[in-house]
Amino acid sequence: MHILIIGAAGMVGRKLTQKLVKDGKLGERAIDALTLADMVTPDAPHGFEGKVTLQTADLSAPGEAARLIGARPNVIFHLAAIVSGEAELDFAKGYRINLDGTRYLFDAIREAHDVDGYKPRVVFTSSIAVFGAPLPYPIPDDFHTTPLTSYGTQKAICELLLSDYSRKGFFDGIGIRLPTICIRPGKPNKAASGFFSNILREPLVGQEAVLPVSDDVRHWHTSPRSAVSFLVHGAKIDVETVGPRRNLSMPGLSATVGEQIEALRRVAGNKAVALIRREPDEMVMRMCAGWAPGFEAKRATALGFEAETSFDDIIRAHIEDELGGALQ
Amino acid sequence: MHILIIGAAGMVGRKLTQKLVKDGKLGERAIDALTLADMVTPDAPHGFEGKVTLQTADLSAPGEAARLIGARPNVIFHLAAIVSGEAELDFAKGYRINLDGTRYLFDAIREAHDVDGYKPRVVFTSSIAVFGAPLPYPIPDDFHTTPLTSYGTQKAICELLLSDYSRKGFFDGIGIRLPTICIRPGKPNKAASGFFSNILREPLVGQEAVLPVSDDVRHWHTSPRSAVSFLVHGAKIDVETVGPRRNLSMPGLSATVGEQIEALRRVAGNKAVALIRREPDEMVMRMCAGWAPGFEAKRATALGFEAETSFDDIIRAHIEDELGGALQ
Repeated sequence: MHILIIGAAGMVGRKLTQKLVKDGKLGERAIDALTLADMVTPDAPHGFEGKVTLQTADLSAPGEAARLIGARPNVIFHLAAIVSGEAELDFAKGYRINLDGTRYLFDAIREAHDVDGYKPRVVFTSSIAVFGAPLPYPIPDDFHTTPLTSYGTQKAICELLLSDYSRKGFFDGIGIRLPTICIRPGKPNKAASGFFSNILREPLVGQEAVLPVSDDVRHWHTSPRSAVSFLVHGAKIDVETVGPRRNLSMPGLSATVGEQIEALRRVAGNKAVALIRREPDEMVMRMCAGWAPGFEAKRATALGFEAETSFDDIIRAHIEDELGGALQ
Repeated sequence: MHILIIGAAGMVGRKLTQKLVKDGKLGERAIDALTLADMVTPDAPHGFEGKVTLQTADLSAPGEAARLIGARPNVIFHLAAIVSGEAELDFAKGYRINLDGTRYLFDAIREAHDVDGYKPRVVFTSSIAVFGAPLPYPIPDDFHTTPLTSYGTQKAICELLLSDYSRKGFFDGIGIRLPTICIRPGKPNKAASGFFSNILREPLVGQEAVLPVSDDVRHWHTSPRSAVSFLVHGAKIDVETVGPRRNLSMPGLSATVGEQIEALRRVAGNKAVALIRREPDEMVMRMCAGWAPGFEAKRATALGFEAETSFDDIIRAHIEDELGGALQ
């Protein structure tokens, strides 16, 4: 089978590529072709014996979507988006990339469907940003999507399109509402939510990290490993069992910052915890107050999506996947 | 003040125009200009002393929205849409008119806002079609929007845009989720939901009407008069009291077909009821099963939106507004 990943150069895209290459198959079917597309040319994966095509593509440019699906990939992972902060700063760009880009893709598939019956699986990464405060805890599966960011609005709109295009039979769509990914590998970044990862990742390698909020802030997390597993499961799942409501809040782990820190203490000791420097930041605290504290995720759990059940496991996943399996 | 009605030639648009002309003001402010726009040229209203501009406009044509708001109307009622059946039959047209048209309008306002600080009130007619089965009864205000038609999807998307553009300060938007309008004046039409009105309107003037479903079908209704009152109230309401969730399920009356018929009996007697001919239609019954049975509408009620509380009142409103106040 042929798999297309749009947004393959990002963190999740790279990890998804690695996972697919390692497995060599999706469900029962061998993967014989991979097309990796992004605004910057993705790296070629190591160890894949099938055909690899690397594409530099801006999905929001007319015609690009039709080109990307020209070879009729069986499964399309659509991960491409500009992030929340950028979509908030540049309103028009956010709508162009995150909404129009997705719609061009969906319409290109629809037009191909009308020509030759093409009907791929489309796995779309949505986000818990489709929800906006005030939020209950836990958030039930049937809670309304009232985003408080343009990014969340764009994701919620794409979810609606995904369901409607699936209902009309143009493709088999599954929308995956990812929790906040923790521990996000790499360097500390400027995302307001970055501290959830920073306070674990940096101390694990002996570096200081700044905690801008109080210990009782509760949020919804999953590891990069689980995020990838959600996408792969979403590509395999029988859509008949999903029904017409194609967008699923994924399982995850609801934890306070204090619980994160205690997990760090259990896994890496007091020395690691001592590297967390508390520097309260009013603005980040205000933003945090609107973020999702946790979900019931009953539907996704019943459909076989699985996530970590303790922060110790999330930290250990990071040590295995990013630090060679052991602390220095 | 200057009021623009887009979709002014439709049933609700005409009744809204009449109401505004009759009142002569909106809240405390006198209406001195009315612009009426639609795909077909709207009729000029009788008895309005201010300036009337009639526009033939296709909102989905680029540039039309900027032209419509050229004179910077203070309030814009956006009622324009193709109906559910047509949006389902012509997928591309539905998205072009119902989604792109609305987005062109919102973006034209945003661009005007960026130029000169323009910030009108925008009252948008949404629909209970943003909800899709299975639905609880009553449907709470925080229930998710999972439409099962392209029309409902387009309305749900426009709701999200309305909230986001309002949040960013480009305009003050209010989305009004209208119940099914009953008794719809005019001739019986082909809409699958038409029977809710037909079985009352036709017998009231001595004509036969066909009932394609069983008496226990429950649905959510409001009179044309109340629908107009919702729009007018939405144009006056203090948006600070509404908060960031700008789309409101309106109050209405939840009633079974049997309850509708008993109200007809009370108002117009057994002779009228005898004109209802039962002709069960499997397809209509299947469609009905997915329609909204009723809403809590707590937020809208708290915000001062009001509707009829008995079907007798809905029938009497029709007799007053459409039949000169008395049965023949």
